[in-house]
Amino acid sequence: MPDPLSRLYENVCRHARETALLNSIESVLGWDERTMLPAAGGEHRADQMTLLAGMVHQRLIEPQYGDSLGQLAESPLAADPHSDSGATIRRLKRQHDKKVKLPQSLVEELARTSVLGQQAWQEARQNDDFAAMRPWLEKTFALKRQEADALGYADRPYDALLDDYEPEERTSHVAEVLRRLREELVPLVEAIRGSARRPDTSILRRTYPTDAQKAFGRQAAEQIGFDFQRGRLDVTAHPFCAGLGPNDCRITTRYNERFFNESFFGILHEAGHGIYDQGLRTDQYGLPLGEAISLGIHESQSRLWENLVGRSWPFWESFYPLAQQHFPAALGDVDPDDFYFAVNDVRASLIRVEADEATYNLHILIRFELEQALLDGDLPVADLPAAWNGKYRDYLGIEPSSDAAGVLQDVHWSAGLVGYFPTYSLGNLHSAQIFAAADAELGSLAQSFSQGEFQPLRQWLNEKIHQQGQRYSADELVMRITGKPLSHEPLMAHLRAKLGPLYGIA
Amino acid sequence: MPDPLSRLYENVCRHARETALLNSIESVLGWDERTMLPAAGGEHRADQMTLLAGMVHQRLIEPQYGDSLGQLAESPLAADPHSDSGATIRRLKRQHDKKVKLPQSLVEELARTSVLGQQAWQEARQNDDFAAMRPWLEKTFALKRQEADALGYADRPYDALLDDYEPEERTSHVAEVLRRLREELVPLVEAIRGSARRPDTSILRRTYPTDAQKAFGRQAAEQIGFDFQRGRLDVTAHPFCAGLGPNDCRITTRYNERFFNESFFGILHEAGHGIYDQGLRTDQYGLPLGEAISLGIHESQSRLWENLVGRSWPFWESFYPLAQQHFPAALGDVDPDDFYFAVNDVRASLIRVEADEATYNLHILIRFELEQALLDGDLPVADLPAAWNGKYRDYLGIEPSSDAAGVLQDVHWSAGLVGYFPTYSLGNLHSAQIFAAADAELGSLAQSFSQGEFQPLRQWLNEKIHQQGQRYSADELVMRITGKPLSHEPLMAHLRAKLGPLYGIA
Repeated sequence: MPDPLSRLYENVCRHARETALLNSIESVLGWDERTMLPAAGGEHRADQMTLLAGMVHQRLIEPQYGDSLGQLAESPLAADPHSDSGATIRRLKRQHDKKVKLPQSLVEELARTSVLGQQAWQEARQNDDFAAMRPWLEKTFALKRQEADALGYADRPYDALLDDYEPEERTSHVAEVLRRLREELVPLVEAIRGSARRPDTSILRRTYPTDAQKAFGRQAAEQIGFDFQRGRLDVTAHPFCAGLGPNDCRITTRYNERFFNESFFGILHEAGHGIYDQGLRTDQYGLPLGEAISLGIHESQSRLWENLVGRSWPFWESFYPLAQQHFPAALGDVDPDDFYFAVNDVRASLIRVEADEATYNLHILIRFELEQALLDGDLPVADLPAAWNGKYRDYLGIEPSSDAAGVLQDVHWSAGLVGYFPTYSLGNLHSAQIFAAADAELGSLAQSFSQGEFQPLRQWLNEKIHQQGQRYSADELVMRITGKPLSHEPLMAHLRAKLGPLYGIA
Repeated sequence: MPDPLSRLYENVCRHARETALLNSIESVLGWDERTMLPAAGGEHRADQMTLLAGMVHQRLIEPQYGDSLGQLAESPLAADPHSDSGATIRRLKRQHDKKVKLPQSLVEELARTSVLGQQAWQEARQNDDFAAMRPWLEKTFALKRQEADALGYADRPYDALLDDYEPEERTSHVAEVLRRLREELVPLVEAIRGSARRPDTSILRRTYPTDAQKAFGRQAAEQIGFDFQRGRLDVTAHPFCAGLGPNDCRITTRYNERFFNESFFGILHEAGHGIYDQGLRTDQYGLPLGEAISLGIHESQSRLWENLVGRSWPFWESFYPLAQQHFPAALGDVDPDDFYFAVNDVRASLIRVEADEATYNLHILIRFELEQALLDGDLPVADLPAAWNGKYRDYLGIEPSSDAAGVLQDVHWSAGLVGYFPTYSLGNLHSAQIFAAADAELGSLAQSFSQGEFQPLRQWLNEKIHQQGQRYSADELVMRITGKPLSHEPLMAHLRAKLGPLYGIA
């Protein structure tokens, strides 16, 4: 017979699991919306998702559930914050305490606006029509500001929103890390621009038939460890990875017959997210120990497989012969060295998701600064396109010729994801720092990649990160794995080590 | 200011609409399960659907909702059973009164078993393994028997289940209609078997590339009136049509490169269901006036487009040149007369969904008799394969060589759909009766089909059937449209008129 405290704990866990179950239904609807939904189905889908969001919210803020969490937080079960019960109670209580601050009506309005905003964005982007998007962005930022005010913040409204994606992180700290990164990154990018060496990237713009891309991409995802018994790969306009259940993780991509990188590295990226998702503890599904800790850590996994692994020479030692088999017309006459240099081309570009490893973070910096200004009210939405273009000129030296290739390229703000962008850069930093630690510990990663063997790295990540769920905060986790706090140095070291020889710079 | 009665009515309608919204989420999960779900995702999907089924049930049986319906049923708003409010109140009350008889635990157990049973069926069918399916069928029929007992019935347990698909219909009446049909059908099929004329069906077994089938099938669906702005067409193992919202209707098919009929007539069939679904009143979505009246009427729409239209000579006058364009290798040298005869081939076969118009109803009769025996306990599940094969020998003169081509071919019983099969035959009867009425009223249907014009028929169906929702019962509706009660005669007249000349029989 269990004691009353254990029973209380079990009840709380049961409640949380059922909330997660309901939440996972919303994930199915969201995935379907972005991959399958007929054009006219949007309004009803918004109704469905609003209903579920409201139900989930009601469960999260139930007073009795809150009382139980309060009791548990004071009990011996929470004494060690990193124990199973301690971490579980702490995270659930943190979530509850946060959600009770949000009025039901705001939660529902945010849910509805995010679904309809995404749909409006698809059309606006297609028609290069910022004016059509403007009222949606105005509404979204107004709602997000209300959300930040309801949640409260010590320093800036942005802190309140950032916390959704990067728990316990602060805007000022992110700004500081990105500032340091930028200080070292800009000279590197300039040195590359000054180099006489240039890869022949036209080979990546030859014809890559979609069916062959599908087969090759799937093979690569499978080989690095994405499990298709527990997942899918589909087509969408704005690729993403979504967990729909403990054994149902779906990645998406888009195929461009005239650009090799778009789907291939996109698939590696999303498969990296998927491997994290599939590596979570299924016995803890719906509880903090079975959930990802932060978007920055999530992104570290995708960027690690995309860049640290997928753009490495050893990876292509094993994969290039396969690529030539899949694309004989495009790659039959191309040397592996030329191909390797081409996929590591660094140059200022307009589209974030197609940016190279080095300039990528400048794209993020632009968005990070703009969304703070929008939220603070310092930048009216009407002035956003001009501000966007100005920052691209300043940071990357180029300017979009259309809003579709500029401010309309990302779905995030339209979907209510404000405070999300910096997690991409955090992910880049984490990925290099984590990979360096894995490489130091495991030793022969390059050799195993060159043999098409990714199991040792995957297993290490699984044990050190995936299986930990939310036991540690992102900062604690990185400190435990790498022995150091988050820093821009490992990423810079990685970029210098790879790009220096390619471009012949010191 | 609305009077209290109007307010009560509005509250009831709001409650029903929100229940329908929740229910439509279950439809999304169900569609996804049958078209997209990764192999390992089944258990969690069952959890999700069980949760929703339980929530929907709770809403349907809410005592306050029941009380309101009780008051409304006694009020002037319900005085005319065919008025908007009268029909709405009557149908909602009928549904409530029925659902309150079902214990929550049974509803949830049925939902879970139906999802897991379908998944088990997919595997069992693939492996031709009836033994693996047996415990699921035993469980399902035991649960369905419990359901029938809980619901109550005047005559036989089967009545209680039939009512779910064919409200107010009785087993004895269906049996009587099918008996009469059989009496006239069997001699016709025998006369055809005795005929020296035979179409060359090998032309339908040439190579029909999947991509061309997709394009041609989609074109046909669009031309008869399925709206792809409000719907989709996807691939599945066991084709179906599902409404996921007022503007989101999804049809499915399967492609067989070596058999023209499978996807083409399947798509016409599902598009017929879809046109009904898309023709319902969107302003009444979630209320009885915006919902289909019965599965028999639903099936009448699919069979009408598949057979009365899609297998008619005038249809192919317009479509055959297109077919030759899509499949030049297979059909370039084939005369339209030969093609028309081939798609109207009548012969005893093993697979229901591939059966011709004439023998189809014998497949249904077999299932109708077997499921009654299973439910009554007169036939143990263990003896089902032998009973199945015996009936195929008796009724169609052939016997399956495997359970996969026999008792495992249909998903219905595995999905808890007991009492569903006879609606297929009712649909066939309705389709001929309704088509004859439309033809008599509109006059020049053959001419419009031969010009690829289907709008007049669609509009007539929309006005007479789709827009009526559940205002009238199926019987009342047929009587209103055709002036006669349901009869086997129009179907027999149609079959004789078409098949007589083809096979040279009187």
